[in-house]
Amino acid sequence: MTKLKDIGELDLIKGLAERFTSSGPDVLKGIGDDCAVLRAGNEALLLTTDILVEGVHFLRDDLDPASLARKLLAISLSDIAAMGGRSKAGLLAVALPPDTDTKFWESFAGALIEEFKPREIDLLGGDTSSSTGPLVFNLILLGRADPERILYRSTAREGDLVFVSRPLGDAAAGLALQAHPEIKINQAAYKYLRAALEEPQAEEELGPLLAESGLVTSMIDVSDGLAADLRHLTEASSLGAEILADRLPFSEEAKDLAAVLDRDPAEWALSGGEDYALLFTVPPSNAGNLRHLIRDRLDREIWQVARMLAEPGLFYLSKGQSRPLTSRGYEHFRSKGS
Amino acid sequence: MTKLKDIGELDLIKGLAERFTSSGPDVLKGIGDDCAVLRAGNEALLLTTDILVEGVHFLRDDLDPASLARKLLAISLSDIAAMGGRSKAGLLAVALPPDTDTKFWESFAGALIEEFKPREIDLLGGDTSSSTGPLVFNLILLGRADPERILYRSTAREGDLVFVSRPLGDAAAGLALQAHPEIKINQAAYKYLRAALEEPQAEEELGPLLAESGLVTSMIDVSDGLAADLRHLTEASSLGAEILADRLPFSEEAKDLAAVLDRDPAEWALSGGEDYALLFTVPPSNAGNLRHLIRDRLDREIWQVARMLAEPGLFYLSKGQSRPLTSRGYEHFRSKGS
Repeated sequence: MTKLKDIGELDLIKGLAERFTSSGPDVLKGIGDDCAVLRAGNEALLLTTDILVEGVHFLRDDLDPASLARKLLAISLSDIAAMGGRSKAGLLAVALPPDTDTKFWESFAGALIEEFKPREIDLLGGDTSSSTGPLVFNLILLGRADPERILYRSTAREGDLVFVSRPLGDAAAGLALQAHPEIKINQAAYKYLRAALEEPQAEEELGPLLAESGLVTSMIDVSDGLAADLRHLTEASSLGAEILADRLPFSEEAKDLAAVLDRDPAEWALSGGEDYALLFTVPPSNAGNLRHLIRDRLDREIWQVARMLAEPGLFYLSKGQSRPLTSRGYEHFRSKGS
Repeated sequence: MTKLKDIGELDLIKGLAERFTSSGPDVLKGIGDDCAVLRAGNEALLLTTDILVEGVHFLRDDLDPASLARKLLAISLSDIAAMGGRSKAGLLAVALPPDTDTKFWESFAGALIEEFKPREIDLLGGDTSSSTGPLVFNLILLGRADPERILYRSTAREGDLVFVSRPLGDAAAGLALQAHPEIKINQAAYKYLRAALEEPQAEEELGPLLAESGLVTSMIDVSDGLAADLRHLTEASSLGAEILADRLPFSEEAKDLAAVLDRDPAEWALSGGEDYALLFTVPPSNAGNLRHLIRDRLDREIWQVARMLAEPGLFYLSKGQSRPLTSRGYEHFRSKGS
């Protein structure tokens, strides 16, 4: 008997998508991008859903409920931003064991509402159930975008430069720090790396700016690690890409921790996940203008980490040598050993 | 320490709604009806989400996965129909233990797709996770409707007649049948009552017909029992209602089983739940026209079960005596004894 742990999470979703290719005239994008996209009058509606399960994504005693709410929201905010949209409304479905402390729920719900308010995101409703096991939270987030400006994964072009919006691997470094409580680092670095893991920030301003600039050809967010997410983008665009090892941006904090642990921070960047950077492709002739725009509007930098190739596949250029990259990032159902 | 089991599910949702009353200009309805309603160009978009948890809503060995998929869909289809909308698209979030048989997933996903196809409902995406405990399925269903024709809970009028679209209590009778395997009834009745419980049918045709007729003032679906759902409607409309015991419609199958078990089928109708009938209010002067329309278009009957009162509260008129009704239907978190 085949069990789910014998196949991968990606196969599960792909299997559904392959059996269900038809879509109505209002569906601009179904399965296969950061969000689904529906036509809604002159606008496009973006939809994304993310599920967090106790014991898989978090431990009840490890994480305070307010952080959990902010993390769940950040994951979905990042999906909306990665299409170039602005988040507008949410629904929340939860399954909670009857012995859950009401304070846990109060703190979770309160934090979610506090995050919604300044963003003018409306809580539209949801569903609640008892759970016979873990706490389960499922957020559905809706965004809006100009349908002509949405950035998909599938529209990168050969020769495009691939940029990321922030240093990579900080969340994975935060996880490594958690796994090694004996390691001593300075308090500021500790706080920075733990925050990267526990309080990730979505690129809510940058995503729409990139879409509206008209200078970018495709986009995805880095939630599963650079290798896995760049692979998603190359496959959706029927292209390949070469990662430029020398250009991968790391924070000083991640580099210091990597040195202490004798690790290569590139591993964290490639397969660590949960960075929620934006990864986007830019024709070489647009790159200068885009850098200027982002400095001008947000006083920020971007980093080139790869270039798009006509040849399919993912390659890693390090010390003058380019070799194929096979890592596919973390998959939930796959047994850890395989 | 207060636990969730000490408060009710209704309080949980209400608590969130009360802390979050503001809503943007595109939100036609937030928390507090069968669906949330968003403006989408000239149309309205309806959104509903329903979560099913193993051990709470179903037992893995008890129900085949295809039936489970159909039931999950029917619950959401009924919510869309209860606003007068037509279902158009869905997202599915699941948490599945790694030891889940892939056949279970295949059967569940296959059945869902088979239900989507003839309805031209698009599967837009979703999320999958491992689960450390029960199977969890969360469906998000989107529908469309004419914003001028949507039927809310809050717009019933004093003196309106209250109708239901089908006999009540069949699902509860099916549950009673399941709890009494020693009971012998004829095979046709057995199949009918078990199907009412396990394969509920949403009023997908009738809902939009009622909305488009212009003859109906408010609507809700009967998912928690007549008492609880009529109470929702009366409270949303700031009115009361009197249930007419003599007029409650029962199937012959439910009446026969009630006789064998020495039960009153009215109990099943009032607090049984899962009937997925539509409950709607009609000014007396429209009732005849509506009956004719429904006979003409769908060759079906409707049943008056109550009338709307100016006085708040829910009353039960039986044998010439009207008494207040306090049953609130099944609540998930509330301990069974309370």
